Amino acid sequence: MENLLRHIPKDVPDELIFTLAESDTVRIERIVSSGQSSPEGFWYDQEWDEFVLVVQGAAGLEIDGEPERTLKHGDWLVIPSHVRHRVTWTQADPPTVWLAVHHRPKVGA
Amino acid sequence: MENLLRHIPKDVPDELIFTLAESDTVRIERIVSSGQSSPEGFWYDQEWDEFVLVVQGAAGLEIDGEPERTLKHGDWLVIPSHVRHRVTWTQADPPTVWLAVHHRPKVGA
Repeated sequence: MENLLRHIPKDVPDELIFTLAESDTVRIERIVSSGQSSPEGFWYDQEWDEFVLVVQGAAGLEIDGEPERTLKHGDWLVIPSHVRHRVTWTQADPPTVWLAVHHRPKVGA
Repeated sequence: MENLLRHIPKDVPDELIFTLAESDTVRIERIVSSGQSSPEGFWYDQEWDEFVLVVQGAAGLEIDGEPERTLKHGDWLVIPSHVRHRVTWTQADPPTVWLAVHHRPKVGA
């Protein structure tokens, strides 16, 4: 048993991504953001669907064509594959901890 | 966008399970426990692997042949398919909120 909120290094320049569990069709990650955001003009465009939950901290999320959202503890959403999105800001102290579940889209969807 | 910790009914006799996202090979659930536990002698024995995270509250988890664990906010573990387990107790107030990710085991594992 481990804890998502422990062993969080301080003053790390990059986002930290750690895979908690993985199979052929799913990848579960802990992501720690300490103020990082997506570069200007950068958009994620992913092959798999992503379920994302904020477990600590807060962040801004922009989905292409939609108003920017603020995510806080407990907020979650599903970002379907190829829906372009970017992280506009993240809380640094305490760091923002995300749980991300990447999974292969439904066959035929 | 929704929040895992909102819209939690009070004084519900049963555990509440709500599917947040689902595909052919993964099912992501919010489970709300308000003091419920597994019946005496009952064991979960599941076809799929399960990743489980406590987002609020606390609970006791027994895995067959291992000492009982106490899970609190942020604690997570993976219960592989067919590893028998049971919930020995759950905190009722505030209710215990779990995120569960059930997923098909790795092919060939």
